[in-house]
Amino acid sequence: MALIVQKYGGTSVGDVDRIRNVARRAIAARKAGNDVVVVVSAMSGETNRLLKLTSDISKQPSQREQDVVVSTGEQVTVGLLALAIQELKGKSRSFLGHQVRILTDSTYANARIKSIDDGPLRASLRKKEIAVVAGFQGIDEDGSITTLGRGGSDTTAVALAAALKADACEIYTDVDGVYTTDPRICDKARKLDRITYEEMLELSSSGSKVLQIRSVEFAMKYKVPLWVKSSFTQDPGTLVCEEDAAMEDVLVSGIAVGRDESRFVVRAVPDKPGVAAKIFGVLAEKDIVVDVIVQTPSQGGATDVAFTVGRLDSEKTLALIKKLAKQIGAGQVDHEEGIAKVSIVGVGMRNHAGVAAKMFQVLAEEGVNIRVISTSEIKISCLIDEKYAELAVRALHAAFGLDKG
Amino acid sequence: MALIVQKYGGTSVGDVDRIRNVARRAIAARKAGNDVVVVVSAMSGETNRLLKLTSDISKQPSQREQDVVVSTGEQVTVGLLALAIQELKGKSRSFLGHQVRILTDSTYANARIKSIDDGPLRASLRKKEIAVVAGFQGIDEDGSITTLGRGGSDTTAVALAAALKADACEIYTDVDGVYTTDPRICDKARKLDRITYEEMLELSSSGSKVLQIRSVEFAMKYKVPLWVKSSFTQDPGTLVCEEDAAMEDVLVSGIAVGRDESRFVVRAVPDKPGVAAKIFGVLAEKDIVVDVIVQTPSQGGATDVAFTVGRLDSEKTLALIKKLAKQIGAGQVDHEEGIAKVSIVGVGMRNHAGVAAKMFQVLAEEGVNIRVISTSEIKISCLIDEKYAELAVRALHAAFGLDKG
Repeated sequence: MALIVQKYGGTSVGDVDRIRNVARRAIAARKAGNDVVVVVSAMSGETNRLLKLTSDISKQPSQREQDVVVSTGEQVTVGLLALAIQELKGKSRSFLGHQVRILTDSTYANARIKSIDDGPLRASLRKKEIAVVAGFQGIDEDGSITTLGRGGSDTTAVALAAALKADACEIYTDVDGVYTTDPRICDKARKLDRITYEEMLELSSSGSKVLQIRSVEFAMKYKVPLWVKSSFTQDPGTLVCEEDAAMEDVLVSGIAVGRDESRFVVRAVPDKPGVAAKIFGVLAEKDIVVDVIVQTPSQGGATDVAFTVGRLDSEKTLALIKKLAKQIGAGQVDHEEGIAKVSIVGVGMRNHAGVAAKMFQVLAEEGVNIRVISTSEIKISCLIDEKYAELAVRALHAAFGLDKG
Repeated sequence: MALIVQKYGGTSVGDVDRIRNVARRAIAARKAGNDVVVVVSAMSGETNRLLKLTSDISKQPSQREQDVVVSTGEQVTVGLLALAIQELKGKSRSFLGHQVRILTDSTYANARIKSIDDGPLRASLRKKEIAVVAGFQGIDEDGSITTLGRGGSDTTAVALAAALKADACEIYTDVDGVYTTDPRICDKARKLDRITYEEMLELSSSGSKVLQIRSVEFAMKYKVPLWVKSSFTQDPGTLVCEEDAAMEDVLVSGIAVGRDESRFVVRAVPDKPGVAAKIFGVLAEKDIVVDVIVQTPSQGGATDVAFTVGRLDSEKTLALIKKLAKQIGAGQVDHEEGIAKVSIVGVGMRNHAGVAAKMFQVLAEEGVNIRVISTSEIKISCLIDEKYAELAVRALHAAFGLDKG
C-alpha cells in the first residue's frame, strides 16, 4: 500500500463539476489501495478577487492581514472537496494550515515552511479518510496565518510528501507533463517521460511555469518522486526524479524561453567590494526580481554590470539605477526592451565539451545576435532580440536532436 | 478608560465604503479613550453565497465541512477591517475564532461557547491596538472550526464582553434601537431608551429580530450592558440592562408580532407520561422549530395538544404528526395556515392584575378572534388570524399607552 500526495491547482477545482472530478480521481486512487492526501489551491480567479478587495482598501496592505483574507480561498476549496468526496461515498476530512500544523516563519505573503506535524494527517489516514489539505497556507509561532507566495500549493504538496515520506507526489495541472520546449512555439515539442530535479529547476527558473521552483528545490532536497500530470486525462505524465546513468546520455533535455525581459548595463562601475551589493540591494528593496546578472572582467579599475528584469519593472528599475549610478560614480546606464532569454538545459552537458559552442554556432547560422551569455553547470542561457525567440527555439530543438523523440 | 465591545452586522460591512465607515467609528471610540474590540459578521450576501456552494455539492452536507466553508465569510471581513483601520492610521490586528481561542462544543453549525481565553485580546489591547474579531466562529477541542448558528456574531460579541468584563457591548445594526413595536406596522411606534433583558428576551422570541435571543440570554446571565445602535447615525440607541424601580411603572414595554405561522392541534391525545415528549421529539429530530405549545387540561383521560411552527415547515410537520398520532392512539390532527402571534411584553405586568383581561378586551372590541393563548410571567401571546395582525398591534399599542411617548 502506497502513500500518495496529490495536488490540484485552481483550474482543476475551478467550479463545482471540476471539484467533483477531483473527488472521483482521489477516490479512484484510494480504491486502488493507496493512502491519499489531496492538496488544493483556491478556485481559479478567487485569489485575485480577494487581492482586489484588499487593494481596494489599502494600496500597501499589511501582509499579515492580507494573508488572513487571501487564505480563505483554499479554505473554501478544502471544505467543498471534502463534501464532494463524501457525496460520492468516500470518507474525507479537511485540514487547514493550522490544523495539520504547517509551521512557517513570519514572512507574511512569502513564508517558508519550518516544520510539519505528521500526526493529524496520519490519524486521518488510519481512519481510511482521504485527507484534504489547504495549499498555500501555514501558521507562524504566534498562531497567525501565513501564505507561501504564488504557486505555494505546489510547495505545500511536496513538503507534505516529504514529511509523510510519501511514495509519490503528483502535481495535477492543465498540461499533461513537462515538454522539451513550449509546444505553442515549437510544434515538434515532445513530452518527457523523465527529467532530473536539477534540469527541472533550471527549466522552472528559465520560464517554464509548469512547477513552482521552490517545490522542485524541496523535492530535490528530500528526494520526493514528483509526477507532473493532467487532471483532465489519464496520461502517465512526467516523472521528476534523481539522475541515473541513462539520463546522462541525453545532452540537452529541454529548451526554455522567457520573454518580455528588459536588459540594463551599468557602464564603468568602480571595481570595489560592495558595489554589486549596492546595485542589487536597491532593486531587492523594491521587490524587483532580477533574472540574469553578468559582470565583465575589470579593465582599468572599472567594470560593466549587466542584468535583466521583467518588462513591468523596467521603468522603476531605470529610475533607481540612474540615481544609484551617479552616487557610486559609475558611467552611463544602457537600457533595452524586448529581450528574450533562450536556455538549453541538460545534465548530460556537464560531461561534454562543445555544447555551448554548438549552441552559439546554431544561433549564428540563423543570424541571431547574442547580447549576453550566462551559464550554469547544466544550463546555457543567451539573451537575444525577442523577435528571434521562436526561430532560436526551433533551430536549437532540431540541432540538439529533440525533434526525433 | 472603558473597555467597549462593538459588533457590526453584515449590512454595516456590506462593501468597502461601509467597512471604512466602521473603521472610522472604531477609531473614534479609541480616540475617546476607550479600549476597543470590534466583532464583525460576513459581508451581506456572503454567507448565502457560500451556503449555495456547499448545497450545490451536497444536499445534506457534513456540517463540519460546511462550517469550514461558511466561516471564511467572517475571516475576509476581519482582515479587511483591520486593513481599513490601519489605512486610517489606527493600530489594529485581526483575530479568528481559533486565535482568540473561542472554545465551543462540537455541535457544528450551531455550537455553544464553552470558554474564551482573554489573554490574546488583552495583549492586543495593551499594545493599543483595535482588536478585530471574527464573529460567528469558534473552535472545538479537536481544533475543528465551528459556527454558532445564524446571528451568532451577536453571541460572539456578548460572550467577549462577558469574558473581558467590558463596560459596554454595542450592537450596531441598520435600525437605531429597540422599538415599542414594528414601525412598518404601526407609525406610532417609539424607540425605547431602556428595556430589561427579560423583556428583550420575550420580544426576541416573539418576532422582533433586532437581537439574537442567545446573545440576550448571555448578556443577562453575565449582566453585560447591551446597547442597540445604528451604524449609520449618531443616535444613542437603546440600552438593554437589568430592571430598576422606574421600569416597573410601565405595564407594557413593547408589542411583538410574528407572522407566517401554522397552527396544529392533535386531538384526544392519551394523557400518559412521555406523550408530549414523543410529539416534540419527532419534530426536534427534523430540526423543526416549534413556537407556542399549549396543552389543555385532560378530560376523560385525553387532552388536546396545540402548537405552532413556521409556514415553511408546515407540510413536513403535518406528515410527521399524522403518522405519530396513529402510533400513539391520538385522534385527528387539525391544521391551519395563516396564523399570526401578537404578544405584549413588560416587566410591569408581573405586579398588576388585569393586563391579560385588558388585552383580550381590546382584541374583542376590534372583532379579533383569539385561537390560542399562551402566557409567561412578563408576556402574553395570542394567536390570531393573520389578516388582523396589523389592526391588533395598532389597537394594543394605543390601549397600553405606548402611542404617547
